[in-house]
Amino acid sequence: MSRFAPEHLTPEQIEEQSAVYGPFTQAVRDLVDAAIRTELGGDDIRAAQAAVEAVTARLREREIEGALGVTFSEDGVGRPWGNAVIGLRNAVAPPLVVEKAEDGSRVWSQFHLGAAYEGPPGCVHGGVASLVLDQMLGQAAGAGGRPGMTATLQVHYRKPTPLGPLRAEAWIERTEGHKTWARGELTGPEGLCVEAEGLFILPRWAREPADAETRPGFFE
Amino acid sequence: MSRFAPEHLTPEQIEEQSAVYGPFTQAVRDLVDAAIRTELGGDDIRAAQAAVEAVTARLREREIEGALGVTFSEDGVGRPWGNAVIGLRNAVAPPLVVEKAEDGSRVWSQFHLGAAYEGPPGCVHGGVASLVLDQMLGQAAGAGGRPGMTATLQVHYRKPTPLGPLRAEAWIERTEGHKTWARGELTGPEGLCVEAEGLFILPRWAREPADAETRPGFFE
Repeated sequence: MSRFAPEHLTPEQIEEQSAVYGPFTQAVRDLVDAAIRTELGGDDIRAAQAAVEAVTARLREREIEGALGVTFSEDGVGRPWGNAVIGLRNAVAPPLVVEKAEDGSRVWSQFHLGAAYEGPPGCVHGGVASLVLDQMLGQAAGAGGRPGMTATLQVHYRKPTPLGPLRAEAWIERTEGHKTWARGELTGPEGLCVEAEGLFILPRWAREPADAETRPGFFE
Repeated sequence: MSRFAPEHLTPEQIEEQSAVYGPFTQAVRDLVDAAIRTELGGDDIRAAQAAVEAVTARLREREIEGALGVTFSEDGVGRPWGNAVIGLRNAVAPPLVVEKAEDGSRVWSQFHLGAAYEGPPGCVHGGVASLVLDQMLGQAAGAGGRPGMTATLQVHYRKPTPLGPLRAEAWIERTEGHKTWARGELTGPEGLCVEAEGLFILPRWAREPADAETRPGFFE
């Protein structure tokens, strides 16, 4: 299956695919949550396992080798549907829907993290906060026309992040050649929980003037 | 459901529970992977969705409110089964099985990250690397008798981390009062990919000599 290769799908076909895979993946996310929280045991769980294995076997009758990669439509719009934070088809992803200021100066997202993202009891895992912020900072760099891969990430935990409704925001702090420094924060109902700053660098191999469709780093 | 409260289960009962929930959660992880990689579409996916929703509805007939928290057995052994990195019952977790040097000086884990942890095509999401390392550093602090919550985390990406078999290792670098600095690294088949260092602090409210069962921070 393609990595950065364009797939020649029309916007209508992409819309159609997302209308099929989006709700299905959401159903898998609900299952992940229920699997953590159920109080059923023994035979009930064994029956659930058999049912899940049957679905998986059916899905695997035709599947790509390896991971999903990032595919692009004819107009160059990327679909990072496998991405661990924003992937429409990835049940590990909450997923974040990232919004972007018109002038590209800021990105933000409002989302909900439930039982599957727990670290300390009732709180978001510190590493999940860094996962979300890495994605947001990378997208802030991309939104500002400065795509790159993470070189360093510094995360400052101000107070525990409660599970539940959260907001993340990120922006470019400064730039220098191929380097972009981005900052961002994660806030809960009681205010600021985690701050992060990161350095993003466009890999050398991606710096040649090339077909925009083959340029990586927008999604990470 | 309990957060830090002990559950009065015998080792045999815990073993029995893990023999039921462990394989079931693994089946859910396989489903997450298959949902990303399947090439089936349309009616096949809608049928899969209906089957998944039926399982979820059954599981939710009896479930705890909120997240799983951390429960302890009679002998004080913790079960962070909901944890986003090591949770036996959490399909978002790979899960890592973390090993510990007898003298508590080091922790390590060998594990596999597949399609669900992708960022750049074919590579581990940078934020997933930080998620894994946050957990490992926290466990290194705990293994050395210095449990705490993450205060700061610095992650240095040396080269892209390929999806596939990986190894993470962490250790305590130095300590000062209630502060513990831990370091760790993530390596792939081609060597070092990511380094991290973190500061872990035992929260003030947890510093009183108290029942060990109520002390948090071992798992984060």
